[in-house]
Amino acid sequence: MNRVEVITSRQNSLVKLVRGLGSRRAREAEGVFVIEGPKVIKEALVSGVSPEKIIVSQRALEHRAAAELVNGADLHAEVIMVSDEVMEYMSETETPPGLLGLVRMPEAGLAGLSALKTGPRALLVIIDGVQDPGNVGTVIRAADAFGADAVVTTGGCADIYNGKVLRAAMGSVFHLPVVRDAEPAELQEFLKDRGITVAATSPGENAISLSEARLAWPLAVVFGSEARGVSPEFREAAGILVRIPMPGRAESLNVAVAAGITLYEACRQRGCT
Amino acid sequence: MNRVEVITSRQNSLVKLVRGLGSRRAREAEGVFVIEGPKVIKEALVSGVSPEKIIVSQRALEHRAAAELVNGADLHAEVIMVSDEVMEYMSETETPPGLLGLVRMPEAGLAGLSALKTGPRALLVIIDGVQDPGNVGTVIRAADAFGADAVVTTGGCADIYNGKVLRAAMGSVFHLPVVRDAEPAELQEFLKDRGITVAATSPGENAISLSEARLAWPLAVVFGSEARGVSPEFREAAGILVRIPMPGRAESLNVAVAAGITLYEACRQRGCT
Repeated sequence: MNRVEVITSRQNSLVKLVRGLGSRRAREAEGVFVIEGPKVIKEALVSGVSPEKIIVSQRALEHRAAAELVNGADLHAEVIMVSDEVMEYMSETETPPGLLGLVRMPEAGLAGLSALKTGPRALLVIIDGVQDPGNVGTVIRAADAFGADAVVTTGGCADIYNGKVLRAAMGSVFHLPVVRDAEPAELQEFLKDRGITVAATSPGENAISLSEARLAWPLAVVFGSEARGVSPEFREAAGILVRIPMPGRAESLNVAVAAGITLYEACRQRGCT
Repeated sequence: MNRVEVITSRQNSLVKLVRGLGSRRAREAEGVFVIEGPKVIKEALVSGVSPEKIIVSQRALEHRAAAELVNGADLHAEVIMVSDEVMEYMSETETPPGLLGLVRMPEAGLAGLSALKTGPRALLVIIDGVQDPGNVGTVIRAADAFGADAVVTTGGCADIYNGKVLRAAMGSVFHLPVVRDAEPAELQEFLKDRGITVAATSPGENAISLSEARLAWPLAVVFGSEARGVSPEFREAAGILVRIPMPGRAESLNVAVAAGITLYEACRQRGCT
C-alpha cells in the first residue's frame, strides 16, 4: 500500500470527486468512472485495465478478497484508505463492498473500434436509445456471454459508465470493446465498409421469424428501446428484419431478454454448443 | 363514477391501507394487492380480473385512457377520487400514472393450478428462489410471451404482488396462472402425476447444451437465483439438465435472459414461427 493515512472527512477533495462521479457530466469532465467491488476490479485487472486509484475502507481490508487485491503485485494503482463512514457516503450501493476503483474512460465514438478485427463470424451488438441502465448493462453482459466482438451504444442510451449499467454488466464492459455515443451515420458507414449486415428486431409483419432468419454471416444486431423500438435510420439500413416468435399473450419482451434470445440464435446457427 | 367526493387527506383509512400494501405482510393480511396505471388495469379487466376498487387522481382524469377506463361499462369496481398530492403519496412510482387498482389475491399454493389442463405441449415455468423483483417480473413476462401454461414461484422468491414484480411483468400476471409460494415437494408430486419432466438450467459439465436437449414434450423449466442456482431438490428431481452454450467470457447470464432463451428454444423445437 502506498499510503497509510485514512481519509475520514466528507470534505476531502477525492471524496467529493468520487461522490460527484455519479453524474454523467462530472464523469465526462473528469474523464474517469467508478467501479465497485473486488469482483469487477479483478475483471478490469485481468482484462488489462488498470484503475488509476483504488479506494478501500478499513472494514473491507479485513476481508481476504479486498486485502489480496490491494496487496496484489499486478496492482499499479494508488491505494487510498478511507473510514467506513466515508466509504458509505461515496458508495452508490446499499451494502457497499468497501472497494472502489477509479478508471480512465477510453475515447468515445468509433475511434475505439478502429483496431477491431472482424471475420466471417463477426457479431456486433448495437444498443440504440435504450435508457434503462439495468437493461443496457444486461445486454452488454449477454453480448459478452455470446462472444460478440463489440458493443456500440448510440447517443440516446444510458451512459455505459453509469453505476447501474456497470453493476448489471458485471465486469463485461472490460471483456469486449464497448463504444459509447456512436453517430448512427458513421456507424453504418463503418459496418458497410466491413461487409457487416445490420439485423434489426422488429415486431412488424414484414419481419422474418428469428429461427428462420439466416444469422451465420457477419452481423450487427440492433436493439432499440421497448417503447419506441429500433430508430427509423437503423430500420431502414437493416439488411434483415427479424421478429422473435411469441405464441403467448405478452405483446413484447424485455429488451435484454430479446437481445439474449437473438444472440443465442445467432450462436446456435454458427454451431456453438 | 360511484362517488364524487375527493379524498385529500393522507390520514384517510383507504389511503393508509394502500400505502401500507407496499409491504408483503400487509398484502397477506388484507388479501389484496395494488396495480398501477391504465395499461395494467386494462390487462386485468380483459383477463376477467376485476379490481375491487379503482383510485384515480384528479389530474389523471384529464387523460383519455384513465377517463375511458373509469367510465367503462366493464368496470364493476368502486371508483374513488383522490387529490394529486394524495395519489403521489400512495404511488410507488416516481411519475405516478394517477390510477390505482386494488385486486384480491388468488389463493397461494398449488390450489391455483388444480384446474390447469396440460397436454403434450405443456410448458410450465418454475422460479426458484429468485429474490430480485425485476427479474421475477421479467421471467413472468417471458413465460407469457412464449405461451407457458403457468408460472410457479417457490418460497424464496420475491412476492409476485410486489410492485416492482408487477411493473416488470407488465400485466402478464393476469394472462396466465401465476402460483406463489409453492412447496417444492408438492410441486414435484404435481408434475410427476401429470407426466411433466423437470428441466433445470445448470452451468455444470454434465448438462446438455440447450440446442441439443429435447424440449418438445411436457416440460417444467426451473430457473434459480444467479448466486445459488437451482436448489438441490429441483436439480435432483430434474429429468434434464441443460446449459446455455456461451462461447464468450461472461460466466453467466441474467436469470431472466436465461429464462427467455430457454423458453425460446422450447418454442422453436415445438415449431413456433
